[in-house]
Amino acid sequence: MQVSATEADFAAWMGAIQARVENALARSLPGPPHSPARLHEAMRYATLEGGKRVRPLLTFAAGELAGAAAARLEIAAAAVEMIHAYSLVHDDLPCMDDDVLRRGKPTVHVRYDEATALLVGDALQSLAFQLLAEHALADDPNIQLEMVRTLAVAAGSRGMAGGQAIDLEATGKPLSQTELEFMHMRKTGALISAAVRLGALCAGPCPAPLEQYAHRVGLAFQVVDDVLDAEASTATLGKTAGKDSKQGKPTYVTAMGVARAREFAEELRRGAQAALAGFGERALRLRQLADFIVLRKF
Amino acid sequence: MQVSATEADFAAWMGAIQARVENALARSLPGPPHSPARLHEAMRYATLEGGKRVRPLLTFAAGELAGAAAARLEIAAAAVEMIHAYSLVHDDLPCMDDDVLRRGKPTVHVRYDEATALLVGDALQSLAFQLLAEHALADDPNIQLEMVRTLAVAAGSRGMAGGQAIDLEATGKPLSQTELEFMHMRKTGALISAAVRLGALCAGPCPAPLEQYAHRVGLAFQVVDDVLDAEASTATLGKTAGKDSKQGKPTYVTAMGVARAREFAEELRRGAQAALAGFGERALRLRQLADFIVLRKF
Repeated sequence: MQVSATEADFAAWMGAIQARVENALARSLPGPPHSPARLHEAMRYATLEGGKRVRPLLTFAAGELAGAAAARLEIAAAAVEMIHAYSLVHDDLPCMDDDVLRRGKPTVHVRYDEATALLVGDALQSLAFQLLAEHALADDPNIQLEMVRTLAVAAGSRGMAGGQAIDLEATGKPLSQTELEFMHMRKTGALISAAVRLGALCAGPCPAPLEQYAHRVGLAFQVVDDVLDAEASTATLGKTAGKDSKQGKPTYVTAMGVARAREFAEELRRGAQAALAGFGERALRLRQLADFIVLRKF
Repeated sequence: MQVSATEADFAAWMGAIQARVENALARSLPGPPHSPARLHEAMRYATLEGGKRVRPLLTFAAGELAGAAAARLEIAAAAVEMIHAYSLVHDDLPCMDDDVLRRGKPTVHVRYDEATALLVGDALQSLAFQLLAEHALADDPNIQLEMVRTLAVAAGSRGMAGGQAIDLEATGKPLSQTELEFMHMRKTGALISAAVRLGALCAGPCPAPLEQYAHRVGLAFQVVDDVLDAEASTATLGKTAGKDSKQGKPTYVTAMGVARAREFAEELRRGAQAALAGFGERALRLRQLADFIVLRKF
């Protein structure tokens, strides 16, 4: 396969950010020598060596556009990723999705036990807010408080946790496209938007077009997830595939079919690019990430 | 029973604070009209009309000593109480203590369902940090960031969640008094200390003797809990009594017997009073609370 210079440059940028965030996470998570050792080990198991780090990539791309220091961005990105990691651990629990495989490894409650998985999620959430409060992340401490508020709202009952609750109630019911969007803007979109906002806030107030970009990319991410879940095999995804439709969960594929869902993702991608029009070259990484999120195969 | 003027005054003060905090919680918790209605209703069920509000009382007593405004203290107190309420909801889950009764009512997973109880706890934790970030709680926003950090550390893997993890590992094993103290300073003491610190921080930096006071009161609270759990009936406690010893959990009563545990609580009470010696009349409420916590019968 031919790889262009632009693609190679983007891949190198992603690799560098992923390594930097991995390092920040590893430094921020207490190690097993600190009691309770088993809990700390499980928190590391749940967080390290995992996933594409889409949210941290968005934090860095938005921060680079706004002119934020990488030393701040890696902390903000680690905090967002801890919230994401905690949500996966809790979503996988038997009383939620009851999943045994995540990123190709046994889920936390399978590898450890349910009580530990519950506490891993709880403690990762606390640690995310600790990170945002104990490092100097903004010139103005009021902006740093705004970062705490942004992440808390995105994680809470009007954000991610609320989206999960709507998802639970919706299982087995058909949802309209509007209802699906309401659910997904909370379940997935809220934290993706927060990732973008936090990156920008590391440099100062968040420019309004970035909020639009984040909204569209967040929704596109979920639409593509639904398409991939319907089409891909378990081996490619690293998690149990086709699960949502088997559990009777409404998805963009069940609501509009694969072809229309693909078109919708493409519209959102173009909308996200349009929101960046005024930023010129500074928005390169955000542009590339919008493409990456919609055109990914896994 | 004869009630002295001092006792009546303390009871009136407690009643006023409890009503004020109940009001702040009711205002801060999203109502059922806001989607997801069931989650929001369950969050209110888990938090409102509950308990003695010991942590909020400590926040107000420390804040009054330091000269903080009640409008700030009620928000800080509500945030601490939300962390406490979330921990009860998660502790009661089948994979943890598997309890069906709390404050005389069915626990959240019994009244609703396990998945909802999980999300209630998760969303209450987020909301606690949202409150600390979105209200003006200190003249210096850096002190407000210190409040966020204080609550996050107290809730996390080196605080409350960590104490729970040690408790899980310890079930069925005898613990020494030192090990018990290590566990309880995290499981219960960390959040009680945070309640005191947050109250003081609403007025400025926290005076060092208050940290000592908080440490001793936090530990005394747990020792008295163990004594009451061993002695009281389920009806008096409003939760299942005698459960810890039945589950083979180490307690101060199993470690040192009822009589010595009572003595230990009394030593801690005197130590807490001694830490307040330099504050004179300003420490009245903190003194009364130390007595209340150790001498309570429920």
